[in-house]
Amino acid sequence: MDTEAPGPTAVPGPGAEPASARATWTPAQARAAFRDGLVAPTAGIACGYAQANLIIVPKAQAFDVLLFAQRNPKPCPLLGVLDAGQTTGALLAGGDIRTDVPRYVVYQDGVPVAEPTDITPYWRDDLVTFIVGCSFTFETALLEGGLPVAHIDQDVNVPMYRTSVRCQDAGTMSGPLVVSMRPFPASQVADAVRITSRYPAVHGAPVHIGNPGDLGISDLSRPDFGDPVDIPAGHLPVFWACGVTPQAAVMESRPPLAIGHAPGHMLITDARDSEYLVP
Amino acid sequence: MDTEAPGPTAVPGPGAEPASARATWTPAQARAAFRDGLVAPTAGIACGYAQANLIIVPKAQAFDVLLFAQRNPKPCPLLGVLDAGQTTGALLAGGDIRTDVPRYVVYQDGVPVAEPTDITPYWRDDLVTFIVGCSFTFETALLEGGLPVAHIDQDVNVPMYRTSVRCQDAGTMSGPLVVSMRPFPASQVADAVRITSRYPAVHGAPVHIGNPGDLGISDLSRPDFGDPVDIPAGHLPVFWACGVTPQAAVMESRPPLAIGHAPGHMLITDARDSEYLVP
Repeated sequence: MDTEAPGPTAVPGPGAEPASARATWTPAQARAAFRDGLVAPTAGIACGYAQANLIIVPKAQAFDVLLFAQRNPKPCPLLGVLDAGQTTGALLAGGDIRTDVPRYVVYQDGVPVAEPTDITPYWRDDLVTFIVGCSFTFETALLEGGLPVAHIDQDVNVPMYRTSVRCQDAGTMSGPLVVSMRPFPASQVADAVRITSRYPAVHGAPVHIGNPGDLGISDLSRPDFGDPVDIPAGHLPVFWACGVTPQAAVMESRPPLAIGHAPGHMLITDARDSEYLVP
Repeated sequence: MDTEAPGPTAVPGPGAEPASARATWTPAQARAAFRDGLVAPTAGIACGYAQANLIIVPKAQAFDVLLFAQRNPKPCPLLGVLDAGQTTGALLAGGDIRTDVPRYVVYQDGVPVAEPTDITPYWRDDLVTFIVGCSFTFETALLEGGLPVAHIDQDVNVPMYRTSVRCQDAGTMSGPLVVSMRPFPASQVADAVRITSRYPAVHGAPVHIGNPGDLGISDLSRPDFGDPVDIPAGHLPVFWACGVTPQAAVMESRPPLAIGHAPGHMLITDARDSEYLVP
């Protein structure tokens, strides 16, 4: 999911290097560390490389998931799709999608049933992997643009909310739009829009600025995923489409099997953040 | 296909209004005119609204086509996908995809077999329609930016070339990248890049600038589709990914049935060009 800070599963693996050294790991080094047993959130690891959300479904559901992503590109920006049964690809050269993410969530009939660190026991030759852009990429750009990112400053996960906005259906796949929220002072909202607009492949511009009630969010202090953040006086809540959305659709649409990444435990890809910058 | 100027089939239909009046038609009015028998290229009609390439295949091939588009987003930028059997949608409200494009090309086993103005006789409940962005949108932006567009000035179709660059395969779908070419003076190439980069949903930035030989193009004066244009001294050829690419893939991949639009005879959608502008 699109989360950034350590969660309860943030325990350094045996033999892990100090966190600061991880910032300069190559993506291949990071994936090898996870494959070898490191379990940790991926924020701050292999800086400059795009991290990604993961959703894996059987081929029988793959057209619907692909179409759902096409019809809902802001929450589900696809960076890549692996063929049925394929466990590696250009975004994770030499890697293995079954072992290279630090922690996964396995859903059966839409219900989370396990959070393994290796999905090899669940693997089947008909599984299709969808690699979905993550807001890490534009948060780096916000920070480089001099904009404070509240949940990073407060050292918590970004707050995420189910909304009353429905995604566009695609066959068997349906679900609510999930959004992440970052507060900005009124004077910086335009900059936040301008900077994130340049990254359409990783959620792009905000979907909503201001009144949370319009999205059916009754209480910003109680997010559905992640952690609440303090919103200083004079700050507006700014909402972006969130990569949790496909997992919310899985929970609603109940395919027999689906596998996602665990919150904050992303796939670290070989693509540079800068590859997703336009113009 | 991504072409702009009248081809040999450019004959005004009975009762057609003068061409100048067509510029201010709404998309719905334009589609109704085509449905009622007008056969004409769509350049200059319903200005300000996005025109689109079309590719229609049976559901059995739809996953491969959708994945081909996802993996090759520069030549195949999807604006929308209609469900199997569905003949209308948000991009053509109140319209009918079987009658609202002025002319179609029908492929059987990859071979063009007919160019009808109504595909109702070919329609099946398992046909899935893909609506693909078109360079008309960024050409308007180029013109508004003060850049001359050679093929418009010379009143011919844009020249298009099959290249030696292969698209990424997707299941049964494979084919060459097709590009369109527009020459610009050396002083304006950067502006052409800057302006078109802001339209990633309609082919975006150029894929190649300069030497055509690098793309396997031996003679710019002999395009594979469209018409040659004069290239003044001091101009560089600039190449963009082209919406003909999916039809080239159909010809190579030979699905039992596929239907595209005829060159220059696009679907006129209800989306405004400005909706595809980032940031």
